Amino acid sequence: MTQWVYAFGGGTADGESAMRNLLGGKGANLAEMAKLGLPVPPGFTITTEVCTAFYANGRKYPAALEAHVRGAMTALEAKAGKTFGDPADPLLVSVRSGARASMPGMMDTVLNLGLNDETAAGLAALSGDARFAYDSYRRFIQMYSDVVLGVGHEHFEEILETTKEDNEYRYDTELTADDWKGVVAAYKAAVQKALGKPFPTDPYEQLWGAIGAVFDSWQSERAKIYRRAHDIPESWGTAVNVQAMVFGNMGETSATGVAFTRNPSTGEKRYYGEYLINAQGEDVVAGIRTPKPITKQTREEMKEAGLSLEEALPDVYRDLVAVFEKLEAHYRDVQDIEFTVERGTLYILQTRSGKRTAKAALKIAVDLAQEEVISQHEAVARVDAAQMEQLLHFVIDPNFQRDVICTGLPASPGAAVGRVTFNVDEAERLGNAGVAVILVRNETTPKDIHGMRAAKGLLTARGGQTSHAAVVARMWGLPCVCGASAIRIDEKAKAFQANGRTIREGDMISIDGAAGEVIAGEAELVQPELAGDYETLMGWADQVRRLKVRANAETPSDVKAAKDFGAEGVGLCRTEHMFFDPERIVAVREMILADSAEGRVAALAKILPFQRGDFLEIFRIMGDLPVTIRFLDPPLHEFLPHSEEECEDVAKATGADAKALFARAQELHETNPMLGFRGCRLAIVYPEIYEMQARAVFEAAAELGKETGTAPAPEIMIPFVVTAKELAALRVRVEAVARDVQDETGVALVYQIGTMIELPRAALRAGVIAAHADFFSFGTNDLTQTTVGLSRDDSGKFLGAYVDKGIFEKDPFVTIDPDGVGEMVKIAAQRGREARPGLKLGICGEHGGDPASVAFCDAIGLDYVSCSPFRVPIARLAAAQAALPKMKP
Amino acid sequence: MTQWVYAFGGGTADGESAMRNLLGGKGANLAEMAKLGLPVPPGFTITTEVCTAFYANGRKYPAALEAHVRGAMTALEAKAGKTFGDPADPLLVSVRSGARASMPGMMDTVLNLGLNDETAAGLAALSGDARFAYDSYRRFIQMYSDVVLGVGHEHFEEILETTKEDNEYRYDTELTADDWKGVVAAYKAAVQKALGKPFPTDPYEQLWGAIGAVFDSWQSERAKIYRRAHDIPESWGTAVNVQAMVFGNMGETSATGVAFTRNPSTGEKRYYGEYLINAQGEDVVAGIRTPKPITKQTREEMKEAGLSLEEALPDVYRDLVAVFEKLEAHYRDVQDIEFTVERGTLYILQTRSGKRTAKAALKIAVDLAQEEVISQHEAVARVDAAQMEQLLHFVIDPNFQRDVICTGLPASPGAAVGRVTFNVDEAERLGNAGVAVILVRNETTPKDIHGMRAAKGLLTARGGQTSHAAVVARMWGLPCVCGASAIRIDEKAKAFQANGRTIREGDMISIDGAAGEVIAGEAELVQPELAGDYETLMGWADQVRRLKVRANAETPSDVKAAKDFGAEGVGLCRTEHMFFDPERIVAVREMILADSAEGRVAALAKILPFQRGDFLEIFRIMGDLPVTIRFLDPPLHEFLPHSEEECEDVAKATGADAKALFARAQELHETNPMLGFRGCRLAIVYPEIYEMQARAVFEAAAELGKETGTAPAPEIMIPFVVTAKELAALRVRVEAVARDVQDETGVALVYQIGTMIELPRAALRAGVIAAHADFFSFGTNDLTQTTVGLSRDDSGKFLGAYVDKGIFEKDPFVTIDPDGVGEMVKIAAQRGREARPGLKLGICGEHGGDPASVAFCDAIGLDYVSCSPFRVPIARLAAAQAALPKMKP
Repeated sequence: MTQWVYAFGGGTADGESAMRNLLGGKGANLAEMAKLGLPVPPGFTITTEVCTAFYANGRKYPAALEAHVRGAMTALEAKAGKTFGDPADPLLVSVRSGARASMPGMMDTVLNLGLNDETAAGLAALSGDARFAYDSYRRFIQMYSDVVLGVGHEHFEEILETTKEDNEYRYDTELTADDWKGVVAAYKAAVQKALGKPFPTDPYEQLWGAIGAVFDSWQSERAKIYRRAHDIPESWGTAVNVQAMVFGNMGETSATGVAFTRNPSTGEKRYYGEYLINAQGEDVVAGIRTPKPITKQTREEMKEAGLSLEEALPDVYRDLVAVFEKLEAHYRDVQDIEFTVERGTLYILQTRSGKRTAKAALKIAVDLAQEEVISQHEAVARVDAAQMEQLLHFVIDPNFQRDVICTGLPASPGAAVGRVTFNVDEAERLGNAGVAVILVRNETTPKDIHGMRAAKGLLTARGGQTSHAAVVARMWGLPCVCGASAIRIDEKAKAFQANGRTIREGDMISIDGAAGEVIAGEAELVQPELAGDYETLMGWADQVRRLKVRANAETPSDVKAAKDFGAEGVGLCRTEHMFFDPERIVAVREMILADSAEGRVAALAKILPFQRGDFLEIFRIMGDLPVTIRFLDPPLHEFLPHSEEECEDVAKATGADAKALFARAQELHETNPMLGFRGCRLAIVYPEIYEMQARAVFEAAAELGKETGTAPAPEIMIPFVVTAKELAALRVRVEAVARDVQDETGVALVYQIGTMIELPRAALRAGVIAAHADFFSFGTNDLTQTTVGLSRDDSGKFLGAYVDKGIFEKDPFVTIDPDGVGEMVKIAAQRGREARPGLKLGICGEHGGDPASVAFCDAIGLDYVSCSPFRVPIARLAAAQAALPKMKP
Repeated sequence: MTQWVYAFGGGTADGESAMRNLLGGKGANLAEMAKLGLPVPPGFTITTEVCTAFYANGRKYPAALEAHVRGAMTALEAKAGKTFGDPADPLLVSVRSGARASMPGMMDTVLNLGLNDETAAGLAALSGDARFAYDSYRRFIQMYSDVVLGVGHEHFEEILETTKEDNEYRYDTELTADDWKGVVAAYKAAVQKALGKPFPTDPYEQLWGAIGAVFDSWQSERAKIYRRAHDIPESWGTAVNVQAMVFGNMGETSATGVAFTRNPSTGEKRYYGEYLINAQGEDVVAGIRTPKPITKQTREEMKEAGLSLEEALPDVYRDLVAVFEKLEAHYRDVQDIEFTVERGTLYILQTRSGKRTAKAALKIAVDLAQEEVISQHEAVARVDAAQMEQLLHFVIDPNFQRDVICTGLPASPGAAVGRVTFNVDEAERLGNAGVAVILVRNETTPKDIHGMRAAKGLLTARGGQTSHAAVVARMWGLPCVCGASAIRIDEKAKAFQANGRTIREGDMISIDGAAGEVIAGEAELVQPELAGDYETLMGWADQVRRLKVRANAETPSDVKAAKDFGAEGVGLCRTEHMFFDPERIVAVREMILADSAEGRVAALAKILPFQRGDFLEIFRIMGDLPVTIRFLDPPLHEFLPHSEEECEDVAKATGADAKALFARAQELHETNPMLGFRGCRLAIVYPEIYEMQARAVFEAAAELGKETGTAPAPEIMIPFVVTAKELAALRVRVEAVARDVQDETGVALVYQIGTMIELPRAALRAGVIAAHADFFSFGTNDLTQTTVGLSRDDSGKFLGAYVDKGIFEKDPFVTIDPDGVGEMVKIAAQRGREARPGLKLGICGEHGGDPASVAFCDAIGLDYVSCSPFRVPIARLAAAQAALPKMKP
């Protein structure tokens, strides 16, 4: 029979950390910690299989579950020495979600479960603190009502406010036990009013309600959005953890906190964390009170008033440090630990691998390897390749004169510039419209993440470095300043005030997430230097990987950046990008308007020197690294103005004939330009276009050859091929130009001619196409569009719904669709190599910079991936990670 | 060593009719006829391999060719008893092309080759007819100059006109031998002037020039266009036939003619042909003089003045009939024979399978089978399936009151209505723009075919039933009236006159190609009744074929027509076609504008009764034949007006909000609608659309079930699927509606749910998709668009160039691309059937009515093809022809 429930606590456990898939991260680690002898409050975990069965079975629990839970509660009562619902000595529990992958802040939690009028009275008597008991009780009612019963905050707020007004209190802490008792009664009445039935008093009814709420929350909109953002499959499900309560809010020797064994922002080897005296755990994470550092050193550096944990509760601190050492040694990684101190006794509520910035991830991985805790290969595997992008984020130019408005906590590194926005929906709207915005909030909640995602940076007035805003920002590599307490937001006036200055909605500000600074106006941003840990880890990665990494680049600055990022060549130089320069576009349009080959040749002759210059510069930068030049690809109408008005403007500016321009634009208009008159089709009809481009390439190569003694060996790529005949016909023409240039210049030219495989027919016909190709480069953007029948420009209307509904596991434009597009690539690679052993194979779609897609390319034996310059480091690391499992230990 | 030249004549030959690929049709048949002992002037054939080698080798002949030709000439001289270039008794030859497939009028011919001043004098002496000799000489110069030297007609016309004016002659026949001598001298001077060098006098130089011209003509634009229209590969090449001349223009006992052993227009078993006394062969075919019938009976029926061949030269006629009998018995098919009578002696110059109208093809095939000359299976194989379309051509409504302008020869059956056009380029322009035109010409030449192809019908003032216009029109199934001699065309005035009436360019006329009538105004056309031979042959075909044939139809009239044409079901009922009705489009737009599911449901409820009515009517017509209903497929913007003006118009007419309409149209606009938000994607986001359609289908089925006792079993087809999940999700919804309707009506419903395979990903994933599909229907239109990356709406810009250059063998939207799209279909069929044995497979793209594609579908084991109603007979016959080779003899 399936075991639906796993117990832990009292130095033992049914599970262990390896059972993460079944118990969720939290449950598995609670079990592991219990086995390690750490002070974990006892409890049990309802497995993720229950969640999966629950949804598979029309939201019904497995039949045996109830008995299993009853049994586990009885065992828990024995370990805790208290009984659930016992008015004399009541066992209270927390109910929390715990998915396989950590989803911070996304899943709902209920604390203090088991309280009712009788057990609250018992708790008051037992603790000798009636105020604490009834405060806990009212918190429980409010939390349970919100999460389980759907009776939100707004039903209760006025009750508390009225009580405070009636008593002329300013702070919650002024309320007496009797006040709280009154609040409890009013809360229960509010629930009765809202639901038409009373708040449940039976502890088991409460428990089942909370368990159900956790499972329900797996399908909440917030959870879905998070899963989509983090590629977490719906099928994984969540576990539920039921655990005996301990109280951090039982007075001045009680506390609660969150700590990391190393700094998760910088990676520095130093304990890092925050705590609050006399508080429950949610108070730290929610960011309502600003917590204090745990170490004295940090407190002093931050010039914080109040005591660190080290100073306030030195014995507890000593115990905590012992736990840090034990856990980091055991897990061989930085741990993110939640703890509670109940009347001087330390309890560990959770440990998990600490989320970290890319910079910290690098430093920690390199440090752990150098401390010989992990191997170099493990270090390479430890760093999330996608997260590396954060490292490439901009910082404020050191020479920029900062006008600092105020400071806050340096919650997530990187700098951002944008317009101030207070509303999350507005942030989403503007962000999606391409406007850079900085979202400014008192604090953020999981309900805000759609707006946070669309912002360039986050600024909050409240909350610490482990607040919701900070955690989410670090995960996404979003610059963030938290707890900038000088800020007063006036939502009505659409402005915030800080240190006597007023910043209005729409004003431009800058934030420095590494310094915690909020800066007036538009700061100048620069690319950070990559060195140190980055170089070390990348060196280890480069030793491991098999795949070469190239970049998609055509401007000199991009080509330079690509080389600096470690690109081993240009995999895609899009020549059409060179046609839009104002000096050139006139000649391009002249070419398009010409009605004879002679006219086109004459116009192309004007473009030739520009193109030759472009290629010469690229060849100079790349030296002996390969450069793949794709010949003209887009349909010609992309170079023409479209409306009659635009044509007239262009005509006026360039002396062209507006009517002819408009007529030709109309003639070239396409219903489906993606499937239109483009790529090699243009050159089959107008061969002179590619002949000009070939001449520019070869003349540039010859010129550099004369300069340096060795001409570069360009790779010429013919796009949009569907038949071997197209490639054969154009190959002949390019070869003829090469012979001509060789004869004219006397420079021996070496080159390759290959093709993009970007249409299903090309993939199927790869065997015969390979006879004429020195290389294939998979254009997986267009191959995705045609294989899946999905226009990248239009799919926004439904792609979200498709991912939400689980029809697509992932956005196929981000991660290669392995079953469809991936099979096409596999077929082409296999047929191409069968026909031409050793055929060079690469990928130059945007998938080349996506770690999962890089792993796919490695698995099917491609030779290289090519991606945007800023993703080259990601691809290098991802390629190494893909190679690691195949290496001998 | 390769034999480049094959001799024939004198009762023997090197070749035979089976060597058609090597010798071309004409050469193979000349060899065969020589072997049969028929009176064939001796000669030899230069093989098609020479042509292929010539083009493969940069237009150079094989080295041994010259020696082979010299040897063959020597042997020919021996057989003819004359010597090439001998002034005393000169051998003259014709040089003609002869491709593997007949290409009438497309290749150039030179007659009387071998004439120069000396041999012309010899011919004059020998024949005793100097006028004939010098007329032949000037004809030779003119023909040779035009075809070989590129010195056209226009260089010579004035010379002849001046000679006639100077002598006050009216007709060419009035010129004397000396006059012609003068014309010859002037012609030679004209050539000297045009080329700067003299007309070649050496017979061998003449011969090689003519051979070269034949090979050159293989790559002429006309030949290319013909090949494209008839799917003749460029690689086949043409042969060259060199044959001793015989003269039909040696006086009143000489003649030339063309004959068919049966009537090629009706198929009637009766000799059919035309001849001219004292003429050369080209005179008949070119249609310059109107020839006479060969049989007395025909002459009498046609009320022709002058004598038939039967009357004029009865001995020759008797010999000719013997040849007819011998040849038809030998070839077991109708023969198309060219003959010449030289001073009472019959020579056969050519025989070939006679081109025929579809009606004649049917009758001849059925007659030959009933005469037991061929088997029923051979009869089925004999009829060109594509040509069957002719049978389905419209005829003039018998009740229409005809206003006959004039009559001509009934050259090609069928009726056409269109605007009078005299210019071929204009005909092409208008025809391509969708304007129905009737091309009116004195006569047509191969140079006119681009305009002929674009016309709805042809009308010529001159020429007989074997004239160029007639032959081409019959081949293409184009209605044609020839030799309407009452017509006087005035090209300058852009009008023609006939029987005192003036018809101007742009006027609407009608022609009846079966009656030979030219009718004023726009006649009403009706569908002809299909019976007799058609029914007989189709019956034989239906016994043979394995593939089922369905139709793509949704209007009651189309569904009815489809059933009448023998469709065994509806393979594709496009429901969106039912949405455009003015009454419905308002509700459709309301649905599109609704911003909630409720709003959409309310709008859809208005469409429901219409859709239900549509389906009910279709089910009633089709009875127990299957009907496949495709749910809504196109993107929603197709139902909205596009420009701001259109939106305002629609808003005014319907009371909608113009701004909202335009905003929604803008919002729904797509860059690539082919790859957009369409098909099942709409239903994944707006499930209520398919739910309404499912309800309409099931309610209609239930209603008919109540009426008749058996509800039809609809096949519901979900379009544009790329994942199994889409189909699974929508299947659940459709099944739920079926259950609801079953519960509401009490009628038990049987149905199938399947999908279109129209995207490459769907083809690759067919195995998992099949788990949820009762059938697959291949949407090869969209599958071609995506597999080949080819937009049907846009590819016109380059598809012609692609076919001309041989990059595509055929237009992939007409005949399925077997290597690309075909492989996708094969992969899907195989994976689908592996996962679900017996899965029903069909095709519903337009390829379903193309014979080559039908053969492909048969070969890969599909269950049915579905095509437009008018192509159903074609598909039935093509399916039988595809099955024949696999049958036991």
